[in-house]
Amino acid sequence: MANKFVLVINSGSSSLKFAVIDTISGEAVLSGLGECFGLEDSRMSWKYQGEKKEVAITDEGNHHQAAISMLVDLVNELGLTENIVSVGHRVVHGGETFTKSVLITEQTIKDIEAVQDLAPLHNPANLLGIRAALEAFPSLPQVAVFDTAFHQTMPAKAFTGGIAHELYEKYAIRRYGFHGTSHFYVSREAAKMLDKPIDKASFISVHLGNGASVCVIKDGQSVDTSMGFTPLAGLMMGTRSGDLDPGVIEFLLKKGWTQDEVFDTLNKKSGFLGVSGLTSDARGILDAMEEGHEGATLAFEVFTYRVAKFISSYMVCLDSLDGIIFTGGIGENSLPIRSKILGYLKLLGYKEDKAANEAARFGASGIITEDGGPIAMVIPTNEELVIAQDAVSLI
Amino acid sequence: MANKFVLVINSGSSSLKFAVIDTISGEAVLSGLGECFGLEDSRMSWKYQGEKKEVAITDEGNHHQAAISMLVDLVNELGLTENIVSVGHRVVHGGETFTKSVLITEQTIKDIEAVQDLAPLHNPANLLGIRAALEAFPSLPQVAVFDTAFHQTMPAKAFTGGIAHELYEKYAIRRYGFHGTSHFYVSREAAKMLDKPIDKASFISVHLGNGASVCVIKDGQSVDTSMGFTPLAGLMMGTRSGDLDPGVIEFLLKKGWTQDEVFDTLNKKSGFLGVSGLTSDARGILDAMEEGHEGATLAFEVFTYRVAKFISSYMVCLDSLDGIIFTGGIGENSLPIRSKILGYLKLLGYKEDKAANEAARFGASGIITEDGGPIAMVIPTNEELVIAQDAVSLI
Repeated sequence: MANKFVLVINSGSSSLKFAVIDTISGEAVLSGLGECFGLEDSRMSWKYQGEKKEVAITDEGNHHQAAISMLVDLVNELGLTENIVSVGHRVVHGGETFTKSVLITEQTIKDIEAVQDLAPLHNPANLLGIRAALEAFPSLPQVAVFDTAFHQTMPAKAFTGGIAHELYEKYAIRRYGFHGTSHFYVSREAAKMLDKPIDKASFISVHLGNGASVCVIKDGQSVDTSMGFTPLAGLMMGTRSGDLDPGVIEFLLKKGWTQDEVFDTLNKKSGFLGVSGLTSDARGILDAMEEGHEGATLAFEVFTYRVAKFISSYMVCLDSLDGIIFTGGIGENSLPIRSKILGYLKLLGYKEDKAANEAARFGASGIITEDGGPIAMVIPTNEELVIAQDAVSLI
Repeated sequence: MANKFVLVINSGSSSLKFAVIDTISGEAVLSGLGECFGLEDSRMSWKYQGEKKEVAITDEGNHHQAAISMLVDLVNELGLTENIVSVGHRVVHGGETFTKSVLITEQTIKDIEAVQDLAPLHNPANLLGIRAALEAFPSLPQVAVFDTAFHQTMPAKAFTGGIAHELYEKYAIRRYGFHGTSHFYVSREAAKMLDKPIDKASFISVHLGNGASVCVIKDGQSVDTSMGFTPLAGLMMGTRSGDLDPGVIEFLLKKGWTQDEVFDTLNKKSGFLGVSGLTSDARGILDAMEEGHEGATLAFEVFTYRVAKFISSYMVCLDSLDGIIFTGGIGENSLPIRSKILGYLKLLGYKEDKAANEAARFGASGIITEDGGPIAMVIPTNEELVIAQDAVSLI
């Protein structure tokens, strides 16, 4: 029997990430990126059997469509087409409508449009990719997988903010949470590692990448998470502030800052970049810190302290905890950041196993705390595999 | 020897609270309130030896001055004047300038003016009271006691937000924290109760009133607190939202809300009031909850959950914890709220002693957890006594 492949598409406003995933091995047979859409140097690059290629997108029309039709040609040329059984699309916001992945129909598209007010930059871009793919692969079933869906099990006390309830009734303002596929994936892998059924397992999942969020998972379900109505909430990130005293925004607006200046600063000039005054990249922060850079040291201190506080705060959601999971680019690789965070959890009994922490990097998973105490572990995430698995299980 | 009294003044924008405190017994010999300044029904009321009186403020000029000169007459009539050795003023914001209480000089007034940008509603009102009192009591030493001063020991990782560092350099935007006199007072009382020297004692102090904040105190010093740049930050309160996803504010402004509408909603129409749709008063919430009111139940759930998460998050600041302290109007009196919060801390080992929790109300202090486990306690706060003590110790 031939292997079943899924084409996974993550369509952004000016880019399109894609991968052909083998649903048995979980490996990416092909992976690539179309980028700089709408600009002159719009291009597509991909990796296949260890080789990398790049071509310009010369079509002057819709670059999403152009990229998808180049993708059709590419998978044809590589002889992958007949193994592709389904197309899986990442969609950022499913509002309260989507509590799990769904087959894409005309109604699905309308429902995604209906909540795009909540993610005005992301959902329309996701829909561009969906529409182009429906045209290009008319005979394949297509599936939408939502960043928010996993968190729809949160109780009202967790998704309701301290704000006027009318904002929820009128505009659906509430906590949604993001990174759902990642928190879902690593919690399932962690349960397997500990040989526990997921519906009896509880974890605090810490996804630290350029975006970052913490999710508390009770009996396999998300019961709270640090991102909120938007992905700007919660932890400090690469360039994002995370949660904030609203009085800071009022102060800046009263000082004459425009709304765009304020939210541009909070989204793009804060976090690692803003606190350090140097870089949004965690590795750059760590390197500069070793050289004694004051801003970088402060950024490291603020970031790790806030992650630790979030982890500790979620202890109140649980009767027992099977493990803290580190994942995402920083969570999977950064020894000093994990080490610092674990140090903060000593009153809760966590003790870093230094050798194990050093070993669990660059794709390796493993438990990084001392035997006999409470467990923290590293699990590399694989959001594309979740999308591929959902895209197969729904057809 | 005659008892030493201090006149304590808390001057707001349209009100003036006052008390004459006996610095030995800590009792208020006289206490009162001038209110509705600037309005037609401006009045002053006070309590002396169990009796209450109220008179209209008929002066058509400056009501702060009028109230203070009525106060001069009142303490004269009551024969308290010659025992008053000092005047203590509450000042909301001391910025980074004031790390402790100070004698008021011309320079002090200039320094308070210099930071009034940070508390544009409060500091000018505090200064109105200070100026009127300097005129009325020219021969008495006067002392300023700051809500923020106790928190000036916070390390940079706690007072630095995830925002661009330039906002700190340019506008002094950082976490300041408030309720400092309350957290100071109850932590000292708690150390006495446990017979520990305060400089070796660590507490998490939970001040729950109409305003609410949590403070973590290590070796007697504030090392983090939930209020921030302004008193809008942190916990959900009577009408305030607490910390928020900045994306919510961006969304509302994009929907066409004015800045005033947004911040008015977050300051005055959120919290207990906004979530319940009913009342800002905790007792009203609890009563309505007993009658099955859905909004009140949600407000109770969100409030207690968020307090518990803040307490738990502060475990990362400590190597050991001597006790969690409940104080403030709600913290001193509300059995169901304390009980619910302690329930959330069971994974951390806290076990409510129901009888003790019931006993520690209406001014009674006490430990409210079971013997042998980690300690939570109730300590009634007394901010006026702190002001009075500082006003004596500085002269």
